[in-house]
Amino acid sequence: MSEPKLDPHFERADYRVFYPITTRWHDNDIYGHVNNVTYYSYFDSAVNRYLIEEGGLDIHSGEVVAYVVNSSCDYRAPLAYPQQLEAGIRVEKLGNSSVVYRVGIFAGGEQLASASGRFTHVFVGRAESRSVSIPETVRQALSKIG
Amino acid sequence: MSEPKLDPHFERADYRVFYPITTRWHDNDIYGHVNNVTYYSYFDSAVNRYLIEEGGLDIHSGEVVAYVVNSSCDYRAPLAYPQQLEAGIRVEKLGNSSVVYRVGIFAGGEQLASASGRFTHVFVGRAESRSVSIPETVRQALSKIG
Amino acid sequence: MSEPKLDPHFERADYRVFYPITTRWHDNDIYGHVNNVTYYSYFDSAVNRYLIEEGGLDIHSGEVVAYVVNSSCDYRAPLAYPQQLEAGIRVEKLGNSSVVYRVGIFAGGEQLASASGRFTHVFVGRAESRSVSIPETVRQALSKIG
Amino acid sequence: MSEPKLDPHFERADYRVFYPITTRWHDNDIYGHVNNVTYYSYFDSAVNRYLIEEGGLDIHSGEVVAYVVNSSCDYRAPLAYPQQLEAGIRVEKLGNSSVVYRVGIFAGGEQLASASGRFTHVFVGRAESRSVSIPETVRQALSKIG
Repeated sequence: MSEPKLDPHFERADYRVFYPITTRWHDNDIYGHVNNVTYYSYFDSAVNRYLIEEGGLDIHSGEVVAYVVNSSCDYRAPLAYPQQLEAGIRVEKLGNSSVVYRVGIFAGGEQLASASGRFTHVFVGRAESRSVSIPETVRQALSKIG
Repeated sequence: MSEPKLDPHFERADYRVFYPITTRWHDNDIYGHVNNVTYYSYFDSAVNRYLIEEGGLDIHSGEVVAYVVNSSCDYRAPLAYPQQLEAGIRVEKLGNSSVVYRVGIFAGGEQLASASGRFTHVFVGRAESRSVSIPETVRQALSKIG
Repeated sequence: MSEPKLDPHFERADYRVFYPITTRWHDNDIYGHVNNVTYYSYFDSAVNRYLIEEGGLDIHSGEVVAYVVNSSCDYRAPLAYPQQLEAGIRVEKLGNSSVVYRVGIFAGGEQLASASGRFTHVFVGRAESRSVSIPETVRQALSKIG
Repeated sequence: MSEPKLDPHFERADYRVFYPITTRWHDNDIYGHVNNVTYYSYFDSAVNRYLIEEGGLDIHSGEVVAYVVNSSCDYRAPLAYPQQLEAGIRVEKLGNSSVVYRVGIFAGGEQLASASGRFTHVFVGRAESRSVSIPETVRQALSKIG
């Protein structure tokens, strides 16, 4: 008899770039674990770091901004401050003006993610609030982690 | 030619109980809107308030706690501090040890939600971390908003 | 024998304007009370609401922004989600380019604040990052709650 | 003519232990800098990490908990996500049931803190909510960073 197969999105091998995350006292909620909401702040932070550092996105005054239009997360195992974590990211689908990411949150060094999420960015002109093509430097960076 | 139909989960009529939410300065992110992560904190806060006030859940020392095992959100229109908001909730599926909620976040008095989300609570013994039947008082409260 | 005198900054009468605050699930930390950090988010939210709604401060694109240069808080009694709270504010000192506020956080309807804080805003040009005179509409609003 | 002297609490040499902090997307507020409130979450996280890892404090089920009774911060220079930061801590005053900490928040590798804060922990019995003597292992750890 075999074990049920785990969703491959929980596997470390599913991700292309990893960033460390230092947990914070108040990541824990009253039940003593990292609150489910906080995982989404890890997602945002890892992906935008990649966009800024590798894709040259200027979040302060660039003409293009990236808005989240949907997001989701599956939670497999609890985490807790003061653990050291890692966020792994990859691009699942790269469109003209939007991109779908997958993000996995790992206890430091672990092979299986504690949580696995997905979210979609739509790129929009900061002034006009209409979707625009993903800027070329950002697109090149994103195409490397597909 | 007709307009595309909106997902009914964005309609006010889809929800059973509403709670006010006062936004906070730092709900806004650098782009000037309520950050996508913050919506999940609205979800948590509205649903747990119902569980505590209507279902008698004791989050401080009760024997049963509720863990989130998955969550998702679709974002339709931006919100921003200092707007006054409302969270509407309903039960989508009530199981033996788990419940699926829908939550809509509305600018005060609006008919269409700015964001519509879903999440699943599994009830677990605080000591043993195994799923348990939903406590009877909680179940009765949840069955009223199906 | 007399009771020790309470710092008058904990008294409701010390404040001029009150705003409701709806607490959130994750305001509570692992110890089951509103986390000490969260009080500062209540301060920020109440004061900026006043600046925006009564003083006409445009936080999205106005030429002047207000930066916090110091802050402090004394905690007297715990609070916990899902309590309903109020933030009371007053101006303690109104200078040319800076203002010192006092803020008290009250459980709904209580006469004594659970926490009493103080912080200083310096008004700065958004572009040049140098201190500037407080805009006239803001100054008029602030002078009403001294 | 000499420069005005900087408060020594901004100097790196004033601190005894340093912890890395990875900033998060939503540490930035609408003005594009780490929000003033967020610094206090850095304080909490650095000090409690020391109490847990060096002093053996059990935040999940220990008999003694540490509550913050006052806190303050002076802000010298802005920080912004995605900068890498460090929190330096030291003990300023070690009493029988309370301790005063100083915390400095530094951009990675910098000699001068961007912000310098202070807060007081009172140790309290988890059950009875009365102040108690600081546990011996915690006291020993604290006495090393005075």
